[in-house]
Amino acid sequence: MKVAILGYGTVGVGVYEMLEKCAGLEPGPVLVRAGKEDKPFKVSSMEAIAADPSVGAVAEVMGGIEPANSYVTMALKAGKHVVTSNKALVAAHGIELAELARENGVSFLFSAACGGGVPFLHNLAIAAQSDNILSLGGILNGTTNFMLDAMQSDAKDYGDVLREAQALGYAEADPTADVSGLDALRKIMLACAVAYDKLPVDGFSREGIESITAADVADFQLKGLTCRLITSGGPAGETVYAYVEPVLFPANAPECSVVKNFNMAKYNGENAGAIVLMGQGAGRYPTASAVVRDLCGLGSLEMFRPDCVKVSADNSACVHPYYVRVDVDKAPRFSFKECRGDEECVRGIIEPIAVPAMHALADSVRKEGGSIFFAAMEA
Amino acid sequence: MKVAILGYGTVGVGVYEMLEKCAGLEPGPVLVRAGKEDKPFKVSSMEAIAADPSVGAVAEVMGGIEPANSYVTMALKAGKHVVTSNKALVAAHGIELAELARENGVSFLFSAACGGGVPFLHNLAIAAQSDNILSLGGILNGTTNFMLDAMQSDAKDYGDVLREAQALGYAEADPTADVSGLDALRKIMLACAVAYDKLPVDGFSREGIESITAADVADFQLKGLTCRLITSGGPAGETVYAYVEPVLFPANAPECSVVKNFNMAKYNGENAGAIVLMGQGAGRYPTASAVVRDLCGLGSLEMFRPDCVKVSADNSACVHPYYVRVDVDKAPRFSFKECRGDEECVRGIIEPIAVPAMHALADSVRKEGGSIFFAAMEA
Repeated sequence: MKVAILGYGTVGVGVYEMLEKCAGLEPGPVLVRAGKEDKPFKVSSMEAIAADPSVGAVAEVMGGIEPANSYVTMALKAGKHVVTSNKALVAAHGIELAELARENGVSFLFSAACGGGVPFLHNLAIAAQSDNILSLGGILNGTTNFMLDAMQSDAKDYGDVLREAQALGYAEADPTADVSGLDALRKIMLACAVAYDKLPVDGFSREGIESITAADVADFQLKGLTCRLITSGGPAGETVYAYVEPVLFPANAPECSVVKNFNMAKYNGENAGAIVLMGQGAGRYPTASAVVRDLCGLGSLEMFRPDCVKVSADNSACVHPYYVRVDVDKAPRFSFKECRGDEECVRGIIEPIAVPAMHALADSVRKEGGSIFFAAMEA
Repeated sequence: MKVAILGYGTVGVGVYEMLEKCAGLEPGPVLVRAGKEDKPFKVSSMEAIAADPSVGAVAEVMGGIEPANSYVTMALKAGKHVVTSNKALVAAHGIELAELARENGVSFLFSAACGGGVPFLHNLAIAAQSDNILSLGGILNGTTNFMLDAMQSDAKDYGDVLREAQALGYAEADPTADVSGLDALRKIMLACAVAYDKLPVDGFSREGIESITAADVADFQLKGLTCRLITSGGPAGETVYAYVEPVLFPANAPECSVVKNFNMAKYNGENAGAIVLMGQGAGRYPTASAVVRDLCGLGSLEMFRPDCVKVSADNSACVHPYYVRVDVDKAPRFSFKECRGDEECVRGIIEPIAVPAMHALADSVRKEGGSIFFAAMEA
């Protein structure tokens, strides 16, 4: 089957090269901007791709919501399967696009949008058919994992590791989506929809890694703890919970062995038990491999099923003790079980508190110009 | 679709219960021994199951080669899909059964035969279609992992942890297949066939955990090392390599975080990079979940493809340094880089040596009544 590729950036080039070697598949036309058609296989007309009967599937790897949404819509209406790595697109329009795919008898798959080379959504979709998924999540952002790992391994400062991540191409010039936890949040939105037929669109709690300092790392490393940015989702009554926040793990937790820019996704099946998947969460070939894997499995699997609906997340039943470092004058609003302080800040573990309440307390500190770092304590 | 179940032991009961709750599937007749038909759904005639047009698929979870092979053959010839957890059957007759399945237009899948609840073979089969698998393997036997973990966590002796594993139902009354590495070897045979279309049937190197002592554990723990029984496979010219042996890992290796009776399977894709899957490798519900997952994915996936052939494994190009503990009088036949000894034995690291040569040296020591423990050093 001939596969058209929308976009010829990092991932698009990888998909093209892999398709050249993949039995049963071959690269078709590649959509680029008008004026950029410098090779015979490059075209600038999506209409031509949609009208080409030799094209059986489209790999959308251009990113962004528009024109990706219009192009994917056009491809599905023309009866082409669509595989995409575009988490923003799927989070925004996935339910409608999956419905359009069903109407046209084709597949709409997006493994590469969550976990890069880690086959998380694919396995989750299969597990959701055959098991009851009790919880899901993990380390779903490689940029922040690289930064946390570097801060902990080399005792470096946040600014240093961010510049290092940018120099290595792991972080964008504007790193906000990664370091604020937004990228990870979009991934858990998709995972919840695949596992529970519920796409959470608001009601989230989200804390990234922007507040962590070398002093924080030094302090919890003394206790043998390792910090990871963890994305969590699961059922919550008629809706789902979905949040992102730093978590501290004891040595020997599998999360501690996830180093550099690797990802670790997991789900807990009522029957299968805890299933953990680790691998490279980004990069040309890992991401391309997820796109091509979806292309090899067309026809059988649905990621967004017909009864998938949008919901508001509810994190109120998710309760953890937290490690908190906060300005001395703001400390009284936290229920420290044990703490130590100096003239500037207080550090310690607070009594268990619901996720939204913890995030609201941190917001209140910051709104008043205060400084705080917090991380859930893994039970 | 109605699924007949062959065998109603630990896994069979789990499959029955899961099918009762799985959309699109329902439990059909369960094959038991004549005289054991104490419930209406239990039958003792495989002929009746094969002739039943309402049965679309058969789950074989009885174990052993006969009568499982005859029954599976009968089911495939009758046009029923077959899913099995029986690694001995697949290792012995898998190629012929897969061919028979193709002739009859049905699936023959066996995820549960390797890794229990860990979806290893399923992901490997998909990855083999779309990527070039550079190596594969991991911790594929939960019984020995439980024993090694207990020896290391609690400083217990081999005999003690074996009795503990038996009391918990993790080890059989005759634990030979597990502790000798045979069970893990059968799993790597299947994985090589799925990844490379080559089923290795001889030429293996296999060392279990029977030689490890509390003193060995204490010694390498001083160096911060953790022992795991590792199964390794990969391409070797026109054939594959496939061997089982203890390996010592530095702290923070993902293998060290695999505790109790968990499994960790991995493969290294040329494009995807290293993909690691962890979960419960055995037990009623994890294994049943793998059977049911295969039943949900019938029709699209082939595990043994048409060009799968039997080969002899060749481990001669696999070279590692080894940790060796051996009787003083046998020590001169090893090239120790560094070692220490007392009146009885010498311990240390030897120069890199090919896997078959290392295993042959150990055999030579044991044939003379000597004692040796060895473990590869993870690079």
